[in-house]
Amino acid sequence: MIRVVVSGAAGRMGRQVIAAISDDEQTAVSGALEAVGNPALGRDAGAFAGLVENGVVITDDISAAFEGADVVIDFSGPRSSLAVIAEAAGRGMPAVSGTTGLSDEDIGKVGEFAEEIPIVMTPNMSVGVNLLFAISDEVARVLGDDYDVEIIEAHHNQKVDAPSGTARRLFEIVSRALRRDPRQVGIYGREGIVGKRPRGEIGIHAVRAGDIVGEHTVLFASEGDRVELVHRLTSRMPLARGAVRAARWVVDKDPGLYDMQDVLALRRRHG
Amino acid sequence: MIRVVVSGAAGRMGRQVIAAISDDEQTAVSGALEAVGNPALGRDAGAFAGLVENGVVITDDISAAFEGADVVIDFSGPRSSLAVIAEAAGRGMPAVSGTTGLSDEDIGKVGEFAEEIPIVMTPNMSVGVNLLFAISDEVARVLGDDYDVEIIEAHHNQKVDAPSGTARRLFEIVSRALRRDPRQVGIYGREGIVGKRPRGEIGIHAVRAGDIVGEHTVLFASEGDRVELVHRLTSRMPLARGAVRAARWVVDKDPGLYDMQDVLALRRRHG
Amino acid sequence: MIRVVVSGAAGRMGRQVIAAISDDEQTAVSGALEAVGNPALGRDAGAFAGLVENGVVITDDISAAFEGADVVIDFSGPRSSLAVIAEAAGRGMPAVSGTTGLSDEDIGKVGEFAEEIPIVMTPNMSVGVNLLFAISDEVARVLGDDYDVEIIEAHHNQKVDAPSGTARRLFEIVSRALRRDPRQVGIYGREGIVGKRPRGEIGIHAVRAGDIVGEHTVLFASEGDRVELVHRLTSRMPLARGAVRAARWVVDKDPGLYDMQDVLALRRRHG
Amino acid sequence: MIRVVVSGAAGRMGRQVIAAISDDEQTAVSGALEAVGNPALGRDAGAFAGLVENGVVITDDISAAFEGADVVIDFSGPRSSLAVIAEAAGRGMPAVSGTTGLSDEDIGKVGEFAEEIPIVMTPNMSVGVNLLFAISDEVARVLGDDYDVEIIEAHHNQKVDAPSGTARRLFEIVSRALRRDPRQVGIYGREGIVGKRPRGEIGIHAVRAGDIVGEHTVLFASEGDRVELVHRLTSRMPLARGAVRAARWVVDKDPGLYDMQDVLALRRRHG
Repeated sequence: MIRVVVSGAAGRMGRQVIAAISDDEQTAVSGALEAVGNPALGRDAGAFAGLVENGVVITDDISAAFEGADVVIDFSGPRSSLAVIAEAAGRGMPAVSGTTGLSDEDIGKVGEFAEEIPIVMTPNMSVGVNLLFAISDEVARVLGDDYDVEIIEAHHNQKVDAPSGTARRLFEIVSRALRRDPRQVGIYGREGIVGKRPRGEIGIHAVRAGDIVGEHTVLFASEGDRVELVHRLTSRMPLARGAVRAARWVVDKDPGLYDMQDVLALRRRHG
Repeated sequence: MIRVVVSGAAGRMGRQVIAAISDDEQTAVSGALEAVGNPALGRDAGAFAGLVENGVVITDDISAAFEGADVVIDFSGPRSSLAVIAEAAGRGMPAVSGTTGLSDEDIGKVGEFAEEIPIVMTPNMSVGVNLLFAISDEVARVLGDDYDVEIIEAHHNQKVDAPSGTARRLFEIVSRALRRDPRQVGIYGREGIVGKRPRGEIGIHAVRAGDIVGEHTVLFASEGDRVELVHRLTSRMPLARGAVRAARWVVDKDPGLYDMQDVLALRRRHG
Repeated sequence: MIRVVVSGAAGRMGRQVIAAISDDEQTAVSGALEAVGNPALGRDAGAFAGLVENGVVITDDISAAFEGADVVIDFSGPRSSLAVIAEAAGRGMPAVSGTTGLSDEDIGKVGEFAEEIPIVMTPNMSVGVNLLFAISDEVARVLGDDYDVEIIEAHHNQKVDAPSGTARRLFEIVSRALRRDPRQVGIYGREGIVGKRPRGEIGIHAVRAGDIVGEHTVLFASEGDRVELVHRLTSRMPLARGAVRAARWVVDKDPGLYDMQDVLALRRRHG
Repeated sequence: MIRVVVSGAAGRMGRQVIAAISDDEQTAVSGALEAVGNPALGRDAGAFAGLVENGVVITDDISAAFEGADVVIDFSGPRSSLAVIAEAAGRGMPAVSGTTGLSDEDIGKVGEFAEEIPIVMTPNMSVGVNLLFAISDEVARVLGDDYDVEIIEAHHNQKVDAPSGTARRLFEIVSRALRRDPRQVGIYGREGIVGKRPRGEIGIHAVRAGDIVGEHTVLFASEGDRVELVHRLTSRMPLARGAVRAARWVVDKDPGLYDMQDVLALRRRHG
């Protein structure tokens, strides 16, 4: 059994991680860390996540939380994240970081810690999304310039940026697979007499509606056929499940900075 | 049996109309008209459409072509269309006009002829597309402002305008059903930090890829559910079939200008 | 403000109804009823639904719960439902019943109460699903026998029956619209050398996978085009929202038994 | 320029191959073979395919047709196919065979010829479908037993068998990737009280409607997300394009029997 300390245990993602671990036979929660002053301190981490009690009390004592753990999963947010990884590095403990919004300087420091411990760090932990990255790359390489590519994403009406980070990543992956310059080929909407579609163009369309958690489609179309690669997220559970999968994977790895493509063994063979 | 004279009989749509009539038990081709100088003059209209011979010779003699017909279907193009309708009006013969690109002046003249004969005139003869118009209106009225609306269309890479005329029509219908001003609420792409989606906004996305004949989706999404109304065109046959359906309908109508919503009895009851 | 007593207030649907009312400007919770012995008795109904406190205590005293209400929404289950509707009838109070699984005898009694009060009773309260019923009927009538119809539904892997009740209802609606006998034309799977598709056949396909809450597609396809009508449910909130919409509608109606088609004014004009 | 002799040049697929070659910069038609008595004998192969004349006359003289060619593409049908491959073998000329319906005995003989020449033989030449095979395998391996798999295919109403050969191949690929026994886990429809979905089950649904050329979806769904891999064929051109791509690839290969997975370098690395 792999023992996991969950950092950010009372947050939305932390609670999902605790739920994902409770569904997983190979991992168990051994510690639950939260920031000083968090109202959930002292509560049972399982009960607070809406599950049965798991006997792990949410604490702001980082040493106590890490005690006896094999790996840390951190969703504590950009302010606390570096201290959590430093603690892991001090203990030689592998880490999974799902925190986003780190400054470039902090990302640099994570890279330094990665010389001491293995760290999985990735903006989107979902296995499905990472598969979409990998197969979009593969399909683009095989189909080549014979097929037009368009990316359509859909998210809820509260999202403030467009297109999504995942859609932008898909765009970069496909552009690179087709040896095109992402700064030249993206188009984010079409209106008016725009003329025939230029050959190398890649359209990116951001639908905003309702409470859609996140959907991405990569469309490849030519004369007479098309391929559509679709991922639909309906809850945050897949992100938590991905973090747990990363924790199981990273626990016996050498120091270094990894992402979900490594965890899933999807790294391209012909870079 | 309803006898139909097909005008523009050697063109892409005219040949489809001849094929659609050959599949239809209630209509028959009685005449086939083409412009002076057309290389298909003198050929059998059925054979020229890729079918078995139907014994109707393609002619540029308008009187001979109209002889014995009950109704005319015209896809002859904006230059010839008015003369064809004038001929029908002179004979008191109902007409179906699928010609697009008429000037406002010519459209006015068609309106005058419609005081003498019944004329069905509509930019898109497809029954499916016209159904999409009607149900998009109905769904928008029932769902009201609780649901966000987005329109996604897809066409081949040779199309020069965006969004499609059909998508613009859908946008107008939905805007009006929701009592919104089409000049205020349309958005044709999203990029950057655009902020939360304004409530009344309607997104229109134009995908261009491969040889897609024409697809339209109207998406209504709210908290917890969504409705998607989709029409996919894979050939021009549905346009021809719609013209034949219009011809069968118009043959016993009073003078007036009609469109496919009339033919299909889809006219809104509550304006 | 319309005052609503929620029956079954601590159940999954009851809590959703309380949440839907808190999002609605025209209604407020005035009472919260639960069965004797329910562990939530004495708790604040808003807090128990995961919202802020609304000052309404969950009670098993039916008189106290109904006090001062304009309408009742009942999701209490087949055992309690009839007593709840009897209480409403005794008070001349309109009722919305989302309880399913009533015996034929109990349904008969509901019909008797409907001679005294207006009752909305419907197996699926979702506005979107009821719209899908209405437009599937309309599209089938207009397209007629020229288009093949197939119904595809998808639900989670814990569902024990197939196809879903909603899919079966769609099948009945489309069959009737096309003047076909539902007992003759349904087919629930195809395997082997089944031969060309018989003209009047309607295929119904039940996909079971993951935690899909409920999706229904009605496909109409002919030569060259197709119409797809799709509803996707991602939470139970739309069912609760539909119940609240029904409560607002029923509050000033004459006695009688109604369903969501009445609430949404979707009743067919040409039966 | 690679010179191609097209066998079955007047047939539906042969004409598509000739059209695909005319769109391709690396290949040219050098010969056009048809069976004795075919009405197209003596006609120009380009003109007969609906293109401009290409100066290659359709002949039944196999030696003349093969003269000067680098590779043969054969869609002549099961009766003639073996003679065509024998001719290629006698000349040491690589071959692409798109003919289906060969007896096991004939397939054995093709295997013998493949000791002398390289032969690409595959039931479905479409690059898109073969990509779908490869990525379905990859996605199944990565997602494993956490995701339920269902396959949905759609074809026209004239198709006599169900599910399609391509759907059955997808089912075998996914079953094998998940180490399941295809004879145990397939289910071709669900009706009645079927109980909760067994974990390892794979549903295969055959939609039949209109003139759909061929669509295949592989759905992987778990708690909170899903992946959908979709291929839509709208004409036979992709099959012809795949054959031309195979011809370009096979022309410098060693003797052996290959399929499209080889041509596209999609052969699994970790069988």
